[in-house]
Amino acid sequence: MRYDEIVIGQSASYTKQVTDDDVMAFARITGDFNPVHVDEAAGAKSRFGNRIAHGMLSGGLVSAAIANTLPGPGAIYLAQTMRFTAPVRIDDTITVTLTVTELLSKKRLKLSTLCRNQKGEMVLDGEATILMDES
Amino acid sequence: MRYDEIVIGQSASYTKQVTDDDVMAFARITGDFNPVHVDEAAGAKSRFGNRIAHGMLSGGLVSAAIANTLPGPGAIYLAQTMRFTAPVRIDDTITVTLTVTELLSKKRLKLSTLCRNQKGEMVLDGEATILMDES
Repeated sequence: MRYDEIVIGQSASYTKQVTDDDVMAFARITGDFNPVHVDEAAGAKSRFGNRIAHGMLSGGLVSAAIANTLPGPGAIYLAQTMRFTAPVRIDDTITVTLTVTELLSKKRLKLSTLCRNQKGEMVLDGEATILMDES
Repeated sequence: MRYDEIVIGQSASYTKQVTDDDVMAFARITGDFNPVHVDEAAGAKSRFGNRIAHGMLSGGLVSAAIANTLPGPGAIYLAQTMRFTAPVRIDDTITVTLTVTELLSKKRLKLSTLCRNQKGEMVLDGEATILMDES
């Protein structure tokens, strides 16, 4: 999508399941082996009662939503804020909803970034700032 | 580390190289196949002149730093802000530096989160809000 095709209020969504393989691979890539993510016993003992996915993996789904849908390939990430509002459990299906909230100068825009699980519970909310790399 | 052992100004760091395998695995986990990350030709044509890592992969290194060093295992991520200030290139070595900036009520704390590459250039700055899960 080109910058001059984008309007405030425009929205897009992206859905992906978070599998055990995804969580274990995310741990290996980053080195984040926090027991609550990778250890069944630690997950069971935690406030969540089960292992949960890394919050930043949901952040990765936001990044994917931006790259795949709005504005799509060529988007350059400038900034992101995130609140992790509920845990993502293994095999949850997460839907990211993006909505354009501001058009800034120099082909920059702001998007609200909301992630919900298959029950409709919000697991992440935040805001992305994107630059469109159009030469 | 226990909440009552933490003081404002306390600092810790975590270092990891970002390999091509890491970038390709991050793309598969999230579904973020933005060409600037996975396609040599698109990277060469971009403003960066080369493929770059996903910004959110650096976010994952911040998550790992928190889980591994300060406050360490049991940390629960509540929020993160991030500005991506320079690109991370394949095989860059990223050092995350965490510094405690605030102690909040209910075993919560704020950390500044800074990522630098092997040349000392800042690639990410931001702030994390963490809850310590001590029962």
